[in-house]
Amino acid sequence: MELLKKKILEVGRVEGEGILKVDSFLNHQLDIPLLNAMGKEFAKRFKSMGITKVLTAEVSGIAIAVFVGQYLEVPVVFAKKTLSKNLDRETYEGEVYSYTKGMKYKIRVSKRYLFKEDKVLIIDDFLAEGQAILGLKEIIDEAHAELMGVGIVIEKGFQQGGKIVRDLGINLKSLVIVDSMKEGKIIFRE
Amino acid sequence: MELLKKKILEVGRVEGEGILKVDSFLNHQLDIPLLNAMGKEFAKRFKSMGITKVLTAEVSGIAIAVFVGQYLEVPVVFAKKTLSKNLDRETYEGEVYSYTKGMKYKIRVSKRYLFKEDKVLIIDDFLAEGQAILGLKEIIDEAHAELMGVGIVIEKGFQQGGKIVRDLGINLKSLVIVDSMKEGKIIFRE
Repeated sequence: MELLKKKILEVGRVEGEGILKVDSFLNHQLDIPLLNAMGKEFAKRFKSMGITKVLTAEVSGIAIAVFVGQYLEVPVVFAKKTLSKNLDRETYEGEVYSYTKGMKYKIRVSKRYLFKEDKVLIIDDFLAEGQAILGLKEIIDEAHAELMGVGIVIEKGFQQGGKIVRDLGINLKSLVIVDSMKEGKIIFRE
Repeated sequence: MELLKKKILEVGRVEGEGILKVDSFLNHQLDIPLLNAMGKEFAKRFKSMGITKVLTAEVSGIAIAVFVGQYLEVPVVFAKKTLSKNLDRETYEGEVYSYTKGMKYKIRVSKRYLFKEDKVLIIDDFLAEGQAILGLKEIIDEAHAELMGVGIVIEKGFQQGGKIVRDLGINLKSLVIVDSMKEGKIIFRE
């Protein structure tokens, strides 16, 4: 997606250890027209697949997922990272290992909002090690729903998540793939 | 907002200790057309105020704030609850006391995304004790920006947040105010 590449080159900041900061438009401040355009693009790419629900994990996937849901005209569900009084007791659970934090955590979706008839599209902002996607897939499997595809805004091509997800036969579409960020220079895959 | 009242009566669930569960459309599963309509309504109510930025706190405010930002044509910033490698070190901080969890936590906004020239509209899903709003106000004050108003989806009229916020002279607009939920019966303020 050219608009997104342009934005990343313009305002993305490469920091130590493979961190690409795009918090000026994607995961802290939100550039709404750009998110809207990304939602439209994902909807175009997955339109023919009969998606009935968009699934993401809190927090950073929500703003993009909302626009995907808008253009596909389906509800969005976001998996929760913390137990709270507001979450039903009956949930589907997935486990996520966070390399950033060096720990495992659970994500949960109430059984009220995912059914075996659902054809699910997972949306997330980043794909690095692929752990969040595996956790969301676990939730979908537990619900006996069908995973139709995964839409990612920025795939880090130099980490293993993309390979893991594609090797599972999952229909993965990333709006951009960053192949390298050496010496602060961002190289996209063609 | 009649559409919202109807939805709450239809699918809202009252549970013990004053909990109103609206996770089928507002804070777990997201009803996109309804969120879009709420965003439009907030934009209408605050349009004349020259808003330059919408501010919310993760998680549940994000999906609504995104549509407010869309209709006001301004960026959205969400305050973060956890420190991470992805958050700048230079932040404005606010403190929030959570009655639900019985503890204090900090919320933070990078100094890159809030300026003294900003005219800020706070958006959130619920107003109960008002603590999240006070934390967000702290951040705005620290940035020497101007708080122009607060837009809330559901105000719990039987808790003190609405009074606290209005007593501070803040322009608070709630789409619905729930005055009572005794014996599971939801009564709206006219």
